[in-house]
Amino acid sequence: MRNIKLTLSYDGTDFSGWQSQSQGERTVQSTLADAIERFTGERPSVRGSGRTDSGVHALAQVASFMTVSKHAAEVFERALNAMLPPDLRVRKAEDVPTSFDAQNSAKQKKYSYMIANTPVLSPFMRRYCWHMPQGLDPGAMAEAASSLEGELDFRCFMAAGSSVKTTVRELIRLEVSAAGHARFLGLELKLDGAGKFIRIDAVGTGFLRHMVRNIAGTLVEVGKGALTPSYMAELIAAGDRDMAGPTAPAEGLFLVSVEY
Amino acid sequence: MRNIKLTLSYDGTDFSGWQSQSQGERTVQSTLADAIERFTGERPSVRGSGRTDSGVHALAQVASFMTVSKHAAEVFERALNAMLPPDLRVRKAEDVPTSFDAQNSAKQKKYSYMIANTPVLSPFMRRYCWHMPQGLDPGAMAEAASSLEGELDFRCFMAAGSSVKTTVRELIRLEVSAAGHARFLGLELKLDGAGKFIRIDAVGTGFLRHMVRNIAGTLVEVGKGALTPSYMAELIAAGDRDMAGPTAPAEGLFLVSVEY
Repeated sequence: MRNIKLTLSYDGTDFSGWQSQSQGERTVQSTLADAIERFTGERPSVRGSGRTDSGVHALAQVASFMTVSKHAAEVFERALNAMLPPDLRVRKAEDVPTSFDAQNSAKQKKYSYMIANTPVLSPFMRRYCWHMPQGLDPGAMAEAASSLEGELDFRCFMAAGSSVKTTVRELIRLEVSAAGHARFLGLELKLDGAGKFIRIDAVGTGFLRHMVRNIAGTLVEVGKGALTPSYMAELIAAGDRDMAGPTAPAEGLFLVSVEY
Repeated sequence: MRNIKLTLSYDGTDFSGWQSQSQGERTVQSTLADAIERFTGERPSVRGSGRTDSGVHALAQVASFMTVSKHAAEVFERALNAMLPPDLRVRKAEDVPTSFDAQNSAKQKKYSYMIANTPVLSPFMRRYCWHMPQGLDPGAMAEAASSLEGELDFRCFMAAGSSVKTTVRELIRLEVSAAGHARFLGLELKLDGAGKFIRIDAVGTGFLRHMVRNIAGTLVEVGKGALTPSYMAELIAAGDRDMAGPTAPAEGLFLVSVEY
């Protein structure tokens, strides 16, 4: 028995997330399992580093599966890319020890959340950003973000109805950066002189359900001036989801990398 | 009577080009005319700086139309954006003299053509690039491009079946640039260490039908080594479409700007 690790990139727009509860939905996991089955003849059990919500993108999600196939990992890479739809690509396929598990072996993850803080949203960014026409203060957002770094109880940023053993997680880095332009192969995507693009980078050892999107939604409230940066400490102390901002939309979220 | 100039950005993927021959297709022109009619009550005759083919994108296409509406140009901007689909945006609406005509008044246009010269194509670039896995030599392409600058008879790059008074056009600038990465708001879109992104920028006073795509297709043949840079002069002299490369796919082409 071999264990194969896949590094995947996908545009989440037309997927019902990594895995769905109901049958017949187009998920990343089932699309991948279908392609592997077509290639090997075996239906694999595909493990992901974690579930991404419907609409969330991945630059480098990691998955693993067991197989008895004798094909070299590079052959898997090419064969799967030939069978997968263009919104899901295998960046790399490699043999790993059978003890490797894409979910349990993950040590650290990085997410980025994109906000187009511009009056008019570029058609080329519409699937990949949260569009926020109201002017935001990225300095205040950065200040608020820095107070969320560390090992904290992030209960206030967890999706309602989640059940986990502990709501303590370690956010190694939470940074807010702003730029006046967004370039795509050197082409300027901003539509007007006004506005900016804001990116939130979150690196952590683990994340609660909706945690990054709930942090992004709360940081945007700080950016609007509706909440102050110092409110973050109160929020963490209270542990009350109702005191935090709304869940930011899925289309702005990218799973950037998973470290093992 | 007023004349209003619109600067437009659109993702061409789901449009049947600027204008179609057959009824009922989703074109940029008809989508725009529908929104203007809904806002003003009059069916406008919308002029574009030129037709973009089905699938071709625009960062700043220019259109104009006459109206008796009393609404300020800024009101047009906001109202049209509220009614248009998200893949078509009005960047700017402004009053111009009635003598202005988006097509006839255009002095200069800039197009960019994008090539992902990478083994695997990022899902995030699949609508906006020509994917060319075979390694290309951008130096040879740049050399070939420089010999196409100037006032020349571009008959060999014109779509078959076009009828125009003259096939002489002036290419002010034709440049090829290559980069090892493509960033989208700072996120790295390249999927693997290998490969590069190549962009062809074309600035001219006028373009024949499919001219940029046919030049791009021919430059790619040079990049592959199938044609030499010095072949360009022969091609121009012969004026034979059959001697040039294939028409590059529409999805890699962007109308970047129109000067008046």
